[in-house]
Amino acid sequence: MFIQRLVIIGVGLIGGSLASVLRQRAACGEIVGCGRSVENLQTAVQLGVIDRYETNPAAAVADADMVVISVPLGEFASIFRAIRDHVPENVILTDVGSAKACVVNDARAELPPALLSRFVAGHPIAGTEKSGVTAAFPELFENRKVILTPTEETDEHACAQVQAMWETAGAEVVSMPVEHHDEVLAATSHLPHVLAYSLVDTLARMDERVEVFQFAAGGFRDFTRIASSHPKMWHDICLANRDAVLSVLEQFNQDLAVLAKALEQGDSEQILTIFNRAKAARDSFCG
Amino acid sequence: MFIQRLVIIGVGLIGGSLASVLRQRAACGEIVGCGRSVENLQTAVQLGVIDRYETNPAAAVADADMVVISVPLGEFASIFRAIRDHVPENVILTDVGSAKACVVNDARAELPPALLSRFVAGHPIAGTEKSGVTAAFPELFENRKVILTPTEETDEHACAQVQAMWETAGAEVVSMPVEHHDEVLAATSHLPHVLAYSLVDTLARMDERVEVFQFAAGGFRDFTRIASSHPKMWHDICLANRDAVLSVLEQFNQDLAVLAKALEQGDSEQILTIFNRAKAARDSFCG
Repeated sequence: MFIQRLVIIGVGLIGGSLASVLRQRAACGEIVGCGRSVENLQTAVQLGVIDRYETNPAAAVADADMVVISVPLGEFASIFRAIRDHVPENVILTDVGSAKACVVNDARAELPPALLSRFVAGHPIAGTEKSGVTAAFPELFENRKVILTPTEETDEHACAQVQAMWETAGAEVVSMPVEHHDEVLAATSHLPHVLAYSLVDTLARMDERVEVFQFAAGGFRDFTRIASSHPKMWHDICLANRDAVLSVLEQFNQDLAVLAKALEQGDSEQILTIFNRAKAARDSFCG
Repeated sequence: MFIQRLVIIGVGLIGGSLASVLRQRAACGEIVGCGRSVENLQTAVQLGVIDRYETNPAAAVADADMVVISVPLGEFASIFRAIRDHVPENVILTDVGSAKACVVNDARAELPPALLSRFVAGHPIAGTEKSGVTAAFPELFENRKVILTPTEETDEHACAQVQAMWETAGAEVVSMPVEHHDEVLAATSHLPHVLAYSLVDTLARMDERVEVFQFAAGGFRDFTRIASSHPKMWHDICLANRDAVLSVLEQFNQDLAVLAKALEQGDSEQILTIFNRAKAARDSFCG
């Protein structure tokens, strides 16, 4: 596959890394960046991640073959509105948002049918706690999974093109229904972020009384790494996927209450059963 | 400092790493290991971590200058009973247990006053999710903190010797009251383990229905790394420090409920306040 003009709306960690790897693998011609921070866009040009930039999405998408939207989830509706009358007829649109029902709903509300059919919702399961184009690197998607969530409206050719783009970036592409994606990601990504932010906040307020953080070891550092992620981005994700997050949180709370009760009652068998089952599961999915 | 005969009761990750670094830095003569698994002790001899071993603690401590107890917290009372009539008069005893009130209580209950004064309770803030002597390595304590929790009974000379041993191992030694140690570690180590085990267990049961783990990324892998820790060891720690763990868990649950309510109500300001505060705290203690 070759993309004559690739437009990245939102040149951050994900958008910047995608641009870098497609450039590195000679899979595209010109790369146009778009965003609100001129400083970040200038940095992206200096780093060679993009060729040039526009701050107006309508101008950025002119003559685009492929438009990748990688902005916070709260901004999709306005981006769709801004570009829908300015994209070329055969453009392919995709995104990298961490929740998919909200994006698909926004697309259905804002895009005309012909364009909606060429919008392929996607989500690369990759990232770090860092953000901005300076954190981008071309190997980010190597051997990572990218989930596409095509709907009944989605054109097969558009879907195949987006899949080819991600495979060029080194990723393995899988497809699943929107709702399935959101349920799985609520469990493995969104809830852990909620728990990490919440725990660090609890300890930060405790830290005013007793200095807890200076005695934190490597386990705590790893456990809380995701609490260094971009707060606004994760605010958007948690709200966008609110129902699925609250549902898995409720299950987690129930299970945690069972464990707490076992601790309170000194129920060794119950505690060991839970710890052993968790270790076996974790060792198995990580090995 | 030079230890003529160092006895390590429990030659696992911590005990084995301590033996290795003290040997490497020529800080001790003979190193005697003691434990229940002959296989592990034979491995320790083959790896050069210890010179020889005994399976009977009473026999192991003969002619010891320094005895380091690094067994699960549930086994301290029986170890104290087994060795108290067999250690030389000027021996120094210390331990590496992750909770300190329970160890100090066991020592007070089991050791005669003269020996109690030469027992220095300690805790190196270091470790990995692995266990057993094969996971040991001499750099484990480099630039890590070791907390000593001397009591009114503790002899100053004994305390200074234990401090010197850990400094030789590359660690920074700090002292604090027993209760302070247990409160801080409940927050930064024991509660995170409880949460990680509980979350992985919740997801493991969810995984029977939808395959969640195969879409887990690096953030989840780091967040749950501590759920691969030794279940029996962490069972002992959580029970030994039960009151402090349940207390910080209650605070965490209250704070998490506030965040969940903010999510439910779409209270952006509250969500952002919590996420921002957590990120700032985490970036500050990690940077």
